[in-house]
Amino acid sequence: MAPPPPSVDRVAGHEAARPAPSLDPLFRLMSGDLERVNALIVERMHSPVALIPQLAGHIVSAGGKRLRPLLTLACARLCGYRDGDRHVAIAAVVEFIHTATLLHDDVVDASDLRRGRDTANAVWGNKPAVLVGDFLFARAFQLMVEDGSLQVLEILSRAASVIAEGEVHQLMTANDTATSEEAYLAVIEAKTAALFAAAARVGAVLADRPHDDEMALESFGHNLGIAFQLVDDVLDFAARETELGKSVGDDFRDGKITLPIVIAFARGDAEERAFWRRTLETGEQAPGDLERAVRILERRGALAETLARARAYAGAAIDALDRFPDSPLRRALAEAAAFATERGF
Amino acid sequence: MAPPPPSVDRVAGHEAARPAPSLDPLFRLMSGDLERVNALIVERMHSPVALIPQLAGHIVSAGGKRLRPLLTLACARLCGYRDGDRHVAIAAVVEFIHTATLLHDDVVDASDLRRGRDTANAVWGNKPAVLVGDFLFARAFQLMVEDGSLQVLEILSRAASVIAEGEVHQLMTANDTATSEEAYLAVIEAKTAALFAAAARVGAVLADRPHDDEMALESFGHNLGIAFQLVDDVLDFAARETELGKSVGDDFRDGKITLPIVIAFARGDAEERAFWRRTLETGEQAPGDLERAVRILERRGALAETLARARAYAGAAIDALDRFPDSPLRRALAEAAAFATERGF
Repeated sequence: MAPPPPSVDRVAGHEAARPAPSLDPLFRLMSGDLERVNALIVERMHSPVALIPQLAGHIVSAGGKRLRPLLTLACARLCGYRDGDRHVAIAAVVEFIHTATLLHDDVVDASDLRRGRDTANAVWGNKPAVLVGDFLFARAFQLMVEDGSLQVLEILSRAASVIAEGEVHQLMTANDTATSEEAYLAVIEAKTAALFAAAARVGAVLADRPHDDEMALESFGHNLGIAFQLVDDVLDFAARETELGKSVGDDFRDGKITLPIVIAFARGDAEERAFWRRTLETGEQAPGDLERAVRILERRGALAETLARARAYAGAAIDALDRFPDSPLRRALAEAAAFATERGF
Repeated sequence: MAPPPPSVDRVAGHEAARPAPSLDPLFRLMSGDLERVNALIVERMHSPVALIPQLAGHIVSAGGKRLRPLLTLACARLCGYRDGDRHVAIAAVVEFIHTATLLHDDVVDASDLRRGRDTANAVWGNKPAVLVGDFLFARAFQLMVEDGSLQVLEILSRAASVIAEGEVHQLMTANDTATSEEAYLAVIEAKTAALFAAAARVGAVLADRPHDDEMALESFGHNLGIAFQLVDDVLDFAARETELGKSVGDDFRDGKITLPIVIAFARGDAEERAFWRRTLETGEQAPGDLERAVRILERRGALAETLARARAYAGAAIDALDRFPDSPLRRALAEAAAFATERGF
């Protein structure tokens, strides 16, 4: 196996000796189940209204790692779920909710249009993207009703409500360089970690495991979700573009306040703070600003610090698996958590 | 009671002798329950994220007749539901789903912004309107999960999915003067009648009544919903502005193809069809076009014809109540259906 690419060390400031963790073992163990999820997704996003499968397919098939449904599948199996297809149906539900969220998250206001990204709404317009998101969301609930577990419905409807709350909260803190670390963590707990946590937890519910197992998997998903999001934040400034879905600097150009910014702002001098306010609050960006942002973030250790936090969350995720007996699947889940903090550099 | 205002006769082409039907008896009988619904709505749309109750309150309190939750309350009572508050909770669910739909229906694309209407999204922007709609939708499902009836969940999640499908379908037929009557009816069955039907049907479910009663109330709600929508279509050309929430000509300016247009287009000559194509398909409207549209609609009997269809649907709604014993509540529901076709002129 190849050692981690050098840029990890540049960001994290240490030499890595162990082999690079990967998602491959998890995908390999779950590939049969995941294929059934993919088939079910295609089947259940069908509608006589042609634009629905067209637009939904644009998102659903646009890659994405299927990480959330994978969590549901793997956690159900880890808990000993064997008979039946309920884990496949609920994994599809999780992906539908995620896809609906993506579609709605990409809705832009007129003032944003000039940024013109190639999202579903850039291709079809805001309104179809919103309505197809609604369709997927409603379809997710129909699938849960067919499954018939009020407990699953409770966990995932609460997650959906928390996600929406988090998204609105994020809008209100957007472009505000005074955002505190607590406020930022509250946002990503709601908009990212809540669905990871719910996706993992329902695995234990499907297998009828005791409450403590549910809570352990919720903790696994929650911590994994935060780790993933923090690394995403770092990658926006440090990724190798070819290996990552999104291009470097997207968050910066959108004026998003992420943890690296929060840390660098707190540690910054007056000149740096003026730079952050100009580029992120007033949105006045000039050529070279992204490069300057990266230089400041590195000088203040903000990327390395964010990555260290991400590693702590990933560690907590791995610890949450302790109560489950050792198995190839448990090891694969732990490796996925380690991968979360090593990917894409 | 006052006789119907003269413009009804102008539109419908006949003299009305009976007293004008009203929603008042229904509101009077349900006022206690409806107050509890309003209190529950305020309580459950609360969120620590202040923008959520602000924006949701803008819609929820912006009047509206609370017709859909009223249907749930009245149908539950008609079916003998007496003990408990489940009908109040499910009526709030119905209003949350309706409000979420309104918020999303008002999302505009950049190209529509110049029309600049005073909707929630015009005040706060598209994105908050979408996300608060998502919150209300998720909250609706949480309330249903708390209620615990999988049957209610099934009926309302299917309605939500059908509504979204209908909205997308409508987008695809928008501005198309070749829309057939069947295609138009399919759209309003999905985007309006489905929620009326579900709101009425769950009343029977709450009261544990046999399937035939559910189906009768579904038919009542379905036919009432279509009647309401058709009259809305007529009112866009014939309403007295002060008495109606929306102003005359909104649909026309948006290029919406409604039943009066479908009928007038089918009956029109080449010159009239050219007029409809110019104003609705290419969207080139000049001062005086709305007045000319109304003159053509009247000349072709399109408003009277649409109103006659609406009355037939309202009649079918009233017939669907036959299986329930006569009572003040049944009479109030029948009067509401009659009111649907007499209001606002």
